[in-house]
Amino acid sequence: MKVVVLFSGGKDSALASILLEPFFDVELVTFAFDGFKTDKAARQAALVLDHPHRTIVFEDELLEEAIGMLLSAGYPRDGINRLHGQALEILSQDWEYLADGTKREDRVPMMTPERVKSLEDRMGVHYIRPLAGYGSRAINALAARHMDFETRPSELFPASDFEVGLRMALEERCGPQAHARIFPKNHMHTRVTRRKRI
Amino acid sequence: MKVVVLFSGGKDSALASILLEPFFDVELVTFAFDGFKTDKAARQAALVLDHPHRTIVFEDELLEEAIGMLLSAGYPRDGINRLHGQALEILSQDWEYLADGTKREDRVPMMTPERVKSLEDRMGVHYIRPLAGYGSRAINALAARHMDFETRPSELFPASDFEVGLRMALEERCGPQAHARIFPKNHMHTRVTRRKRI
Repeated sequence: MKVVVLFSGGKDSALASILLEPFFDVELVTFAFDGFKTDKAARQAALVLDHPHRTIVFEDELLEEAIGMLLSAGYPRDGINRLHGQALEILSQDWEYLADGTKREDRVPMMTPERVKSLEDRMGVHYIRPLAGYGSRAINALAARHMDFETRPSELFPASDFEVGLRMALEERCGPQAHARIFPKNHMHTRVTRRKRI
Repeated sequence: MKVVVLFSGGKDSALASILLEPFFDVELVTFAFDGFKTDKAARQAALVLDHPHRTIVFEDELLEEAIGMLLSAGYPRDGINRLHGQALEILSQDWEYLADGTKREDRVPMMTPERVKSLEDRMGVHYIRPLAGYGSRAINALAARHMDFETRPSELFPASDFEVGLRMALEERCGPQAHARIFPKNHMHTRVTRRKRI
């Protein structure tokens, strides 16, 4: 059975992939915006994990919609959830099993139970969150056993998740300090650098 | 790393064990009440899964407390949650990683997020729910790939979960029809009968 994992190149989506490996043929997909090469970190991390990877470019209209949601809300939650939900919708057209790296304690991105049911029933897919039943400390312990990763400030665009793409697009449209008004300070992202085979 | 899985002999706790196997040394524990041999199904299923298994007998006072909760509430939720929570407390004294087979759609037994945090912080343990991120249909598909199991009415005591023990104790104390007033009708339990090695 194949599973597609929504992949940022960071520790969490990498660990989700590793937990699925013994039971599925894992394929990795990263979403990017046209003109922003935000998928580079994920492509490199996919090589490290040794799974097939592809990048899907969102429609321009979706980026505009998400940026509009960020600016009107003043915080990133709704825009990030919009991208995450749409990414899962797109993946559900070609895969029966979809997964991501969202964790037990995560709040954004997060599908509501109602949207999960709607997605699964409409599209005939299974949405899997391998890390949903793991706390952050357990995830960190498992991740350290299975990979090396670096942790860097989000401003340096170290990963390929939705927030990185939104930060870049927002900076281009509204100036270098725009994302400081929307995104939390001192936010860190991880990037997988080595797979440990144990 | 060792993990102990709260094990009933049914499909869900068996699949939870199978999902953990590639990453942990799995040990299975079943809880029973003194005088009720409810652990037989779990012991047989543990042999099928080929993992070490032990039975822990609850204190008599806990059974009395749980039966009291059932009779005063008129439904089994609170009593089952009490046993489940206490089982995790007991396991947390000897293991660092604890797991069970509770699923995304499960409501009983279920730890609240606050109780999970309390357990993990007080006891220095990690509580893992391998099936928390899987829907029932995905679990059924995975279970069918990895095991054969039979599905039988709860009245026949086919598994070794808390409900089976409570039904037996309630019947002994309050007569053969007592559990019909407390437990839902037509409830089914599963029991693993064969492991498929794929």
